[in-house]
Amino acid sequence: MARKTGSHSEITGPKIRAEAQRLFARYGFAAVSMRQIAGAVGVQAGALYLYTSDKEALLFDLLKTHMDELIAAWRAEPAGGDAHARLERFVRFHIRFNLERAEAVFLSYMELRNLSPENFAVIEGLRKTYETELEEILKAGQDEGVFLIPDTKLATMAIIAMLTGVNTWFREGGRLSRAMVADIYWDMVRKSVGA
Amino acid sequence: MARKTGSHSEITGPKIRAEAQRLFARYGFAAVSMRQIAGAVGVQAGALYLYTSDKEALLFDLLKTHMDELIAAWRAEPAGGDAHARLERFVRFHIRFNLERAEAVFLSYMELRNLSPENFAVIEGLRKTYETELEEILKAGQDEGVFLIPDTKLATMAIIAMLTGVNTWFREGGRLSRAMVADIYWDMVRKSVGA
Repeated sequence: MARKTGSHSEITGPKIRAEAQRLFARYGFAAVSMRQIAGAVGVQAGALYLYTSDKEALLFDLLKTHMDELIAAWRAEPAGGDAHARLERFVRFHIRFNLERAEAVFLSYMELRNLSPENFAVIEGLRKTYETELEEILKAGQDEGVFLIPDTKLATMAIIAMLTGVNTWFREGGRLSRAMVADIYWDMVRKSVGA
Repeated sequence: MARKTGSHSEITGPKIRAEAQRLFARYGFAAVSMRQIAGAVGVQAGALYLYTSDKEALLFDLLKTHMDELIAAWRAEPAGGDAHARLERFVRFHIRFNLERAEAVFLSYMELRNLSPENFAVIEGLRKTYETELEEILKAGQDEGVFLIPDTKLATMAIIAMLTGVNTWFREGGRLSRAMVADIYWDMVRKSVGA
C-alpha cells in the first residue's frame, strides 16, 4: 500500500479512517463510493489512493485495527486473580470497550461479508484469539472447581453474544447507567457458569 | 401495492421473495438491483413492479413476514406449565426456529437500516412484541419465586442475544447436534436466571 510519509498523511490518515467508518456505518459499505469518502475528508478522490489501494483495503484496515485494539486493551487490563475475578473483569471490560467503540463494533458485524477471503480469515483469526482469552478463563474456573459449565466453547460464544448485544439497545441517559448494566450482566454471566 | 391475482402471482410471488432474500443476504441490499432480482427469477424487471412498488417495499415484506411467522410459530407452541417449563420451551423454540430460518434472521439483523422510518417502526414493534413474550415468562417466574433476576428487561435482551448468537457459529454436521446445542444453552439460560 503506497502511503505518504510526513505531516500530510498523519493528518489525513486518521481523518480518512474516521470518515470511512462513519459513512460505512451509516450507509453500508456497498453504498459508499471512494469519491464520497474523499468529499467528506475534503480531498480529491485521487488523493485517497495515496493512502489505500482500494475501498476493501480501507474496510479491512478499519476492522483489523478494531480487533487489534480490542485485544491490546484487554491484555493491558490488570492480570492475576482467580477465575471468578478474571471473568468479572472480562465481562466489565467487554461491555465498556464495546460501548466506547459502538460504530467500529457495528461495522465489524455488518461488513464482514465484504472482505476478501484472505482478509476475512485474518479477522476471523483475531476474533478467535479474543474468544480464546475468555475460554481460557472458563477452563481455569472448571479446573479450580468454581465454575460448572457443560461446554466451555459454547459458553464462550454465548457470553460474548450476550455482552455484545448490549450495544444494540443501550442508550446513554436511559433508565440504567453503564455501570448498572455491567453489574446486572455480571450477575447473569456469573450465574450462567454456575458460580 | 399492485399485485396480480391468479396462478402467475402464486408462482412468482414466493419465487421473487426467495430470490430477493438470497441476493440481499449474499450481496447486501444496497448492492442488489431490481434488474438482478428479476434476472434470478427469470422475468423482465418491469414484471417485478407488478408484485412490489420498489426494492425497499420488497425488503420490508421479507422482514415483516419473518417476524409475523416467528410470533405465530411461538404462539402455536403448546401453552401452559409453570415459568420454568415455559422458559425451557422458549429457549428450545428460539434456537430451532432461527436455525431453520438462518437467511431470514441474517437479513433481519443486517438490513434494518435500509428500511424507511415508518417501516422500521413496524419491525421494531414486532420485535418488541416477541421480546415481551419472553419477558412475561421471566416476570411470572419472579412472581412464582422460582427465578432470581435483577432486571427482567435486561435479562430478556441478554437471553435473546445469547440464543440468536447460535446462528453465527452453528454448522450442520459439526461437533454438536442442534438438540445438544439446545440442551447446553438451556442449562446456561436456566442458571443465568437463578433457576
